[in-house]
Amino acid sequence: MNAIERLVRPRSIAVIGASADPSKTSGRPVSYLQKHGFAGAIYPVNPKVGEIGDFKCYADIASLPEVPDVGLVLLGAERAHIAVRELSERGAAAAIVLASGFTETGAEGAARQRQLMEAAGSMRILGPNTIGLVNLTDNIVLSASGALAMDHFAAGATGLISQSGGILGAVLSRAAARGVGLSKLVSTSNEADLELSDFIDFLAEDDATKVIALYIEAIRNPLRFREAVIRARRAGKPIVAFKIGRSEAGAQAAVSHTGALAGSDRMYDALFRQLGVIRARTFEDLLDIPAALGAGRKLSGRRVAILTSTGGAGTIVSDSLGVAGFATPAPDTETAAQLRSLQSGSHANLDRNPVDVTLAGLQPDLLRAAIRVLLASPSYDALVVIAGSSAVGSPALMADAIHDCLPLSDKPVIAYVSPYAPEVVSVLTRRGVPAYTSAESCTAALDGLLRAGLPEQVQTSGSPLTAVDVSDVPAGSLDEAQAKTLFARFGIPVAAEKVVATASEAEQAARGLGGRVVLKILSREITHKSDVGGVAVNQTAETIGGRLTAMADEVEARTGKRPGQFLVQEMISGGVEIILGMHRDPLGTAILLGMGGVAAELFKDTTMRLLPPNGGLSLAEARAMARDLVTWPLLDGFRGRPKCDVEALAEAVVAFSRMVAQLGDRLAEAEINPVFVLPAGKGVKAADGLVVLNV
Amino acid sequence: MNAIERLVRPRSIAVIGASADPSKTSGRPVSYLQKHGFAGAIYPVNPKVGEIGDFKCYADIASLPEVPDVGLVLLGAERAHIAVRELSERGAAAAIVLASGFTETGAEGAARQRQLMEAAGSMRILGPNTIGLVNLTDNIVLSASGALAMDHFAAGATGLISQSGGILGAVLSRAAARGVGLSKLVSTSNEADLELSDFIDFLAEDDATKVIALYIEAIRNPLRFREAVIRARRAGKPIVAFKIGRSEAGAQAAVSHTGALAGSDRMYDALFRQLGVIRARTFEDLLDIPAALGAGRKLSGRRVAILTSTGGAGTIVSDSLGVAGFATPAPDTETAAQLRSLQSGSHANLDRNPVDVTLAGLQPDLLRAAIRVLLASPSYDALVVIAGSSAVGSPALMADAIHDCLPLSDKPVIAYVSPYAPEVVSVLTRRGVPAYTSAESCTAALDGLLRAGLPEQVQTSGSPLTAVDVSDVPAGSLDEAQAKTLFARFGIPVAAEKVVATASEAEQAARGLGGRVVLKILSREITHKSDVGGVAVNQTAETIGGRLTAMADEVEARTGKRPGQFLVQEMISGGVEIILGMHRDPLGTAILLGMGGVAAELFKDTTMRLLPPNGGLSLAEARAMARDLVTWPLLDGFRGRPKCDVEALAEAVVAFSRMVAQLGDRLAEAEINPVFVLPAGKGVKAADGLVVLNV
Repeated sequence: MNAIERLVRPRSIAVIGASADPSKTSGRPVSYLQKHGFAGAIYPVNPKVGEIGDFKCYADIASLPEVPDVGLVLLGAERAHIAVRELSERGAAAAIVLASGFTETGAEGAARQRQLMEAAGSMRILGPNTIGLVNLTDNIVLSASGALAMDHFAAGATGLISQSGGILGAVLSRAAARGVGLSKLVSTSNEADLELSDFIDFLAEDDATKVIALYIEAIRNPLRFREAVIRARRAGKPIVAFKIGRSEAGAQAAVSHTGALAGSDRMYDALFRQLGVIRARTFEDLLDIPAALGAGRKLSGRRVAILTSTGGAGTIVSDSLGVAGFATPAPDTETAAQLRSLQSGSHANLDRNPVDVTLAGLQPDLLRAAIRVLLASPSYDALVVIAGSSAVGSPALMADAIHDCLPLSDKPVIAYVSPYAPEVVSVLTRRGVPAYTSAESCTAALDGLLRAGLPEQVQTSGSPLTAVDVSDVPAGSLDEAQAKTLFARFGIPVAAEKVVATASEAEQAARGLGGRVVLKILSREITHKSDVGGVAVNQTAETIGGRLTAMADEVEARTGKRPGQFLVQEMISGGVEIILGMHRDPLGTAILLGMGGVAAELFKDTTMRLLPPNGGLSLAEARAMARDLVTWPLLDGFRGRPKCDVEALAEAVVAFSRMVAQLGDRLAEAEINPVFVLPAGKGVKAADGLVVLNV
Repeated sequence: MNAIERLVRPRSIAVIGASADPSKTSGRPVSYLQKHGFAGAIYPVNPKVGEIGDFKCYADIASLPEVPDVGLVLLGAERAHIAVRELSERGAAAAIVLASGFTETGAEGAARQRQLMEAAGSMRILGPNTIGLVNLTDNIVLSASGALAMDHFAAGATGLISQSGGILGAVLSRAAARGVGLSKLVSTSNEADLELSDFIDFLAEDDATKVIALYIEAIRNPLRFREAVIRARRAGKPIVAFKIGRSEAGAQAAVSHTGALAGSDRMYDALFRQLGVIRARTFEDLLDIPAALGAGRKLSGRRVAILTSTGGAGTIVSDSLGVAGFATPAPDTETAAQLRSLQSGSHANLDRNPVDVTLAGLQPDLLRAAIRVLLASPSYDALVVIAGSSAVGSPALMADAIHDCLPLSDKPVIAYVSPYAPEVVSVLTRRGVPAYTSAESCTAALDGLLRAGLPEQVQTSGSPLTAVDVSDVPAGSLDEAQAKTLFARFGIPVAAEKVVATASEAEQAARGLGGRVVLKILSREITHKSDVGGVAVNQTAETIGGRLTAMADEVEARTGKRPGQFLVQEMISGGVEIILGMHRDPLGTAILLGMGGVAAELFKDTTMRLLPPNGGLSLAEARAMARDLVTWPLLDGFRGRPKCDVEALAEAVVAFSRMVAQLGDRLAEAEINPVFVLPAGKGVKAADGLVVLNV
């Protein structure tokens, strides 16, 4: 057994600083361990007490009769390191440090945390500032969480890793009340040593765990996270993550709370999406979605049957599903006929969905028959059963009726409980029918099932780099011509252009390029050329000479400096303007694609992909980025316009991403704005851009 | 007392078709009436039974010892009308008909409903297909809802009117479990007679009701709804509505369920917004928001303090608030100093929000002191207290600590309960601290408080119409010139233009208009002029003659018909293109304002306002419409562009709305697309448009 296995499944546990008073926080762990059935050895350590409950209490770690697998350290921040050092010296696998007062409180705390880690040596540390861990599979609770005062927890399929201790308790008690089974719960908190990815790795190999739920404040090591997620997904375990920091306020609260540097929320979105991690939209979803996934059924489509005995609730569920893109089609003719045969003589209209079969009271046989019909119907991919007030009096009756039908089909079956009826929720969930009290939860659950079933698409390695010689490229801010030359070296098509200094050179260049041209000043200092009168479109060989002189005058008047160089560029028309850029962040480096034009900019119509390790984006990712845009129809032949050359755009995105990957930390900034995407077959052309290289 | 007062507060109740078996639906009402403490006379009517519980059972309505205020009719759809006729003949104020099998089931059911209403005569009917009504203020339960099997309900401030019976039960039981007090609950369901607005009127005058909650499937009488809402709002009662039909699926389910014609969801949005009705985003919000409003406190700003003993939960609440535009600023220096003085020697950092004061266990004095500091702080408008697991063991201790501080301030105080702890939720709510188990609920509650506090802005009457003579305007589809002439008569500025037939007339017109002009074919049949080559921009007096001939040839080649008339129009540039239109719907007629251009169109950047009765929109509403647009910055001087003439746009919207109001049903369609909004001071110009008038 490695250290983490010994930590999660210890045979012996020392509780350092245990109190004999179970009402105190330091009195809880020993009492919880016993109450929840730990079968191994429990060694309380406290020099002032002889016995704690049924257990002999030891004066110090040195006098323990054996080396404990785990030390649960309940001492305060000032003394925790002493116990940690002694545990390490005796050879314990790991210590769990509950005290707060470390990195989360500032510089002094950070020094304490370094002292703690130094004391730990080769022993692993969970925490500090953690509430511990709970292994429900094996009845081992290494925690002071007040939630453990509850008597019973359902052991089950979902493993939780939380960067907050309080959240562990919240999930534990909420899951217990609903009958949702959990396998292991770990609070990693300050992550001085063991972190998120260590436990994702553990749960990926843990037989009892089928689904992994994550409460994330900040991912400290994105590369390890990436690898751990890929392993877990390959082991067939979907991952659901609730990440705090959707708003600026939340992000700041999280930073304060963990002392970690948070990446921007959109980067997390991109990361989760690329890795196939299902993002929980709300904290409730973090339990709602795993509850559905834990039932082990796969959803293969968006057509949902709703079986109800109460009209309003069925309507609410149908409405919520519809908003999320699910369909609730009416029964096909055959299905409707079968439903009608169940209920002759009633006024119910059975050509509808929600299917309203029961008119009064709970009739289990009718319910069973209707479920059978709907599960067998080719019209539906999933079934939501609505429990109305008739279920309240006899929850088991309803749960059994549904449970009996489950073996007939592998379609997901979930329940919505309309009145307040916690017992109905719990009984249904425990019988394999995940039950919810909000329509949005039902929708999130089905959406999670759908996402979990998507084929794996993780780009595990970057598209290969072909070494481009950039040794001659200067440091600092490149001018537009230099930037475009760099883009072109990496294979990005750029507009034809020529650098000129005089009116006559400009005329010659315009004649060489033919047709209409654009005249721009060329400068490493002035980035907003238009603002100083430094751009003129629609020029010809006839007009450009005079225009150059006028432009030089205007720019000089506005900036106090006469421009010495100009760019004569072919004028591009008839394309769609796109922005291609990059973004650096603690999570990694992302490539950004966005629609140009002010309207799209106001709607922030952009999408991002994190660069995979050691390479650029794949063509498939680049194509998917273009389709992400709300304004994608503009590229795809909106209202009879020509389709744009999306393939050339995707190739340009890949080329740009390889440039970013190869230049690595040397590249401070890079953006092409705009790239013109021309009609299909005509390619793309970078028309302007900037590059800043570090020295 | 009028009939509705007698219905809601009856002194005597006949229960027609009552069963002696309380496990049957028809056995429930008598037993519920007694159980929940009805003090008046109860007359079961059933020819087959002598007594029901403690009550003498009557053979028929004729033999009742007095005229009952209300008859609760439990008979099936086929026989309900018989009891209704007898109740009406004896002079009962109202009958409640529970049976289903009426309009909601199709044509046969609709005939039954007509028969029922004919039998009712002047007596009022609640239902059919209703679960009845519950008056918790006076302990009168006229309902068969299984939710009434619960023993206790909190009487309180919120009145519910539901168009679904099942929803009444769901709200009743959920509110009871949470300690949310309700006044009256009515299920109007089929609304054969009494409907939503009747009960809004009743609750507006009901002393016990401070907040009105509505579950709406369709508003059958928008004008009455409007009037009732205005009355209730004037009586100081906020209205919260959950309207089904946000999705196509939900709308269809609702239609099936009630047999009513639903208006489009965006029209409901516009209606609610104009009337100051707070729209509940989810069914949960329909209880969450009234629970907060019922506490009677007003929120005057967006700055929220979060007091917590568990970091993760505070972060979740902060994050959710941030997404909704609330701020959770750190304490000011003074407040932070006061907080620090409460807790000397601890490691907690008190310069942050969420304010994390309690490190272990529940310390009521510390809690009380911290709440006092935060309520007194000038930095905050509201307070969210987080209840962690320490509250579970002693809910009253925590509730009392918060409750004690309430008189110190009139700022709203709500609670978020992190672990599963229904008793904590209930105790807090009953003590005047509305408590929630999801961060989104906290956010919805605060958002509802903010909306309820907005100054009333209902446009009670339309802006006055000045009679415009339209007697000479032909029926059918007008051509572009005719449409613009009509717009101009109503005061909408239109582009200068001239109708011509020949090349030389066109030349003359272009010369008269000066500058560049646009040439378009003029036709009542061809609406998409560009598609057939019928538009040429950038023309001059020199080019237009030849262009007209070429255009005539091209249009003839494409359509088989040579155009005989053309429009020469001044060419407008430098403005922002806007779409101005109208939309008819069962809810009323709306004016639509939208941004032009394909990108804005893909984002559906439009806003709507329903026309008030007897007039057009006000200038204030028109200005607000422009500011609704996501692309509003384009009108407001985005990135150094000139500000547009928004005032002229607002005047054009008002003029358009008056045209729509005056033409009324004669107007089938009207749209101006585009209106150019020019730089400030330069006005707007309608550049194209269509009008279709009914014969």
